[in-house]
Amino acid sequence: MYLKPDNFTIVIFGATGDLAARKLFPSIFELAGFRHLPDEFRIIGTGRRDLSHEGFREMVARSLANVKDENGNLKGFLDRIFYVRLDIEEQEGYYRLHGEIMDAEGQPGVCSNILFYLAVAPALAPAIVGNLALAGLGEKNVDCGGWRKLIVEKPYGINLPSACEMNRAIGKVFSEKSIFRIDHYLGKETVQNILVFRFSNGIFEPIWNRHYIADVRITIAEDFGIRDRGAFYEEVGLLRDIMQNHALQLLVSVAMEPPVDLSADGVRDEKAKVLRSIRRHKPEDAGTAIVLGQYEGYRNEKNVAPDSRVETFAAVKFFVDNWRWKGVPFYVRAGKNLEKSLTEIVVSFKCPPQNFFGNGDGCSYTANQVIMQIQPEETIALRFGAKRPGEDVVTDPVFMKFDYRDAYPNEGMTPYRRLLLDAMAGDRMNFIRQDSVEYSWAVIDAIREAVDGHRPEPYPPHSRGPESAGRIYG
Amino acid sequence: MYLKPDNFTIVIFGATGDLAARKLFPSIFELAGFRHLPDEFRIIGTGRRDLSHEGFREMVARSLANVKDENGNLKGFLDRIFYVRLDIEEQEGYYRLHGEIMDAEGQPGVCSNILFYLAVAPALAPAIVGNLALAGLGEKNVDCGGWRKLIVEKPYGINLPSACEMNRAIGKVFSEKSIFRIDHYLGKETVQNILVFRFSNGIFEPIWNRHYIADVRITIAEDFGIRDRGAFYEEVGLLRDIMQNHALQLLVSVAMEPPVDLSADGVRDEKAKVLRSIRRHKPEDAGTAIVLGQYEGYRNEKNVAPDSRVETFAAVKFFVDNWRWKGVPFYVRAGKNLEKSLTEIVVSFKCPPQNFFGNGDGCSYTANQVIMQIQPEETIALRFGAKRPGEDVVTDPVFMKFDYRDAYPNEGMTPYRRLLLDAMAGDRMNFIRQDSVEYSWAVIDAIREAVDGHRPEPYPPHSRGPESAGRIYG
Repeated sequence: MYLKPDNFTIVIFGATGDLAARKLFPSIFELAGFRHLPDEFRIIGTGRRDLSHEGFREMVARSLANVKDENGNLKGFLDRIFYVRLDIEEQEGYYRLHGEIMDAEGQPGVCSNILFYLAVAPALAPAIVGNLALAGLGEKNVDCGGWRKLIVEKPYGINLPSACEMNRAIGKVFSEKSIFRIDHYLGKETVQNILVFRFSNGIFEPIWNRHYIADVRITIAEDFGIRDRGAFYEEVGLLRDIMQNHALQLLVSVAMEPPVDLSADGVRDEKAKVLRSIRRHKPEDAGTAIVLGQYEGYRNEKNVAPDSRVETFAAVKFFVDNWRWKGVPFYVRAGKNLEKSLTEIVVSFKCPPQNFFGNGDGCSYTANQVIMQIQPEETIALRFGAKRPGEDVVTDPVFMKFDYRDAYPNEGMTPYRRLLLDAMAGDRMNFIRQDSVEYSWAVIDAIREAVDGHRPEPYPPHSRGPESAGRIYG
Repeated sequence: MYLKPDNFTIVIFGATGDLAARKLFPSIFELAGFRHLPDEFRIIGTGRRDLSHEGFREMVARSLANVKDENGNLKGFLDRIFYVRLDIEEQEGYYRLHGEIMDAEGQPGVCSNILFYLAVAPALAPAIVGNLALAGLGEKNVDCGGWRKLIVEKPYGINLPSACEMNRAIGKVFSEKSIFRIDHYLGKETVQNILVFRFSNGIFEPIWNRHYIADVRITIAEDFGIRDRGAFYEEVGLLRDIMQNHALQLLVSVAMEPPVDLSADGVRDEKAKVLRSIRRHKPEDAGTAIVLGQYEGYRNEKNVAPDSRVETFAAVKFFVDNWRWKGVPFYVRAGKNLEKSLTEIVVSFKCPPQNFFGNGDGCSYTANQVIMQIQPEETIALRFGAKRPGEDVVTDPVFMKFDYRDAYPNEGMTPYRRLLLDAMAGDRMNFIRQDSVEYSWAVIDAIREAVDGHRPEPYPPHSRGPESAGRIYG
């Protein structure tokens, strides 16, 4: 059981934006409804618009229209919400913010414990953090017993140098233990279960290595395009939007060693080691171990350059050069506008040493698979061979499956709810540590350098991606 | 695919009896309906009753009343059936049988290939076989190209000396390759699948040993008593009726090494090795590693002695003293008149070396299990730990399951159909070889000697057996 977080104030930058409306306010409201929040807390939204507290509360109320108000809490919840007009680049607003925070002086803890949520472009983080420091709101200004925490959204930088620079700038004001780099994938129950599945069971670890595993395939596919995010996507592209964070985090969960313990750094030490062990790609990998694609029609999307070379698809063959995984390919494919939306990890095991049960085509390496589907299903399945009923002694590939939603139809936390609670309570396990951010960027930078000057291959919308993506399995 | 068996005659001893009516004729008729039988075949029933061919056909037709006649074959099937009156102990009938067989001289193969099915008390086998030899029907009298086969029901003997004697007597007339000792458990799809499950998958064998397995539990429970078989049961008892054959065969399927190949002797060599490796029980095991029971009311059953000490329940702790299994207990429980009918094998794995996901009670050794249910369900399930959704990182025991009947709703062969076809086609893999019969009796004889003079403990009908049966887990 979680201890309830201390009394605190959460300050949301970008509070009138999309993320705040879709995820943050609903999640905080749900946490309050499930009594996960402390007795006293305040929420201060900031933004450029000129809004009264009341006007902002009405806006928040609209974002909660679809959230069940189990205990009739809405009115009391809205009363805890305040608004401060603030231009990120201008010092002035930060003093107003400081004043608004201090208004709660009468409530023990509320104005000494502050969680800053940066629901804005991460590139703005250094400016915000610098201004917080100037306004006396940085970690160094903490009263005895109080705390400051900072939640930052991905993408955390756009390459290794920018990520280092960002770490340096933020690190001047917040210590590493107070920085929560969020990747909402790590808040998904099914992703968290990868570690539980591997390390709470005695039967998988003995075969979870190069001796028994043929390959690992990770897919993050979406059946829709970039929607109205052309400007964002042109700056980022799939490798930085998905591969650097979600995809590598899934790979890391599959590949990491058992941790010393379940402490934040126990787990994150092992994750960082995997990222360090990923073999860096070289120019000769372009077209063989790396295939990039761009869906047809991408260049006609709003705010996209007509000659854009930004990738909306990537298929990459990785190797983790360590004692456990040497020689085992990790095939990672991610893309927009593909055939279907699917996030899944497939671990394929090698054939048994003898094939007694001849099926004509012999054992295929897909005979045994552990399949962890993150979405649309939330399942773990085991593919194995069973005797086909009847006179012949031949095997059929069959499945046994565990379905999270069947087993727990009414439970589970949404990733943002989960991660917000973790951050409030100070559990850093499911946030990305500085070293992992930097190692992941080193991996992605090597890929981007390797394909520098190559054009992504066009592929039809709702297809399986570029045809030559199959080459990475060669 | 099976080759069709050669043209042949099947001779059934005990053809007017219960087994023939319930299992044999329906199975043969189904095999014919599915076109598994050769173009020409004849069925000759023998019995003490004086019946015409036509009278016997009417009797057989009644036993087929509930069998689907998919292709309108019944009339043609009955035309192939003949009857010979025969007293097992008297030579005369065997000459009549020989004459009836030779009546098919015009049909190639039908009278040179003969399968004898002894659907009678196995103790009668030596007499039958001796008389067959005298009547020129033994294997030594085979024309060039023809064959003779003998199917014998269990229990094959009542102890090691009687089984040896039976093997010796039958061995004078039939070679080992022509003797098919039937245990219908080995005809069950789910039992045959144990080998397929273990050896067609690369992921179980690496952990299928003393390093990873905590124990194996085998249950063969019936929720009914001995019914009207008092006389039989008084002579046999549970150890000889169930433990010597079904239960040990299940144990062997779980424990055997990968065979050289799937030939009959490839598999049976490995089965025999397991039986040889079973540690023989000693008198000090009585009450600790061996607990026998007798259900209350057994002594009032028809044809049961009022002071009977025959057991209707046994719980035995076995050890297989070989390289793979040394130190791993195999707990086998079988009984009549228990709580529910259940045949199942549960393989429990050891805990992972560290318990990260504290559930208060820590890891229990039942956290990981492979559960193979033979009946009433036909399933393979894996019990494992998964993350309980919600804020805590704790595990719940959950299952993934493969259900044979879901996967193959209309398929599968009944055990007798399957084994009859095997015997007709000459596949001996699923029949018990002489050495295995003798090793199993040595195991059972040691148990019976160990408990000699002990009274079986009474237990209430529809209970879980005698209370002290739990002691074997101590």
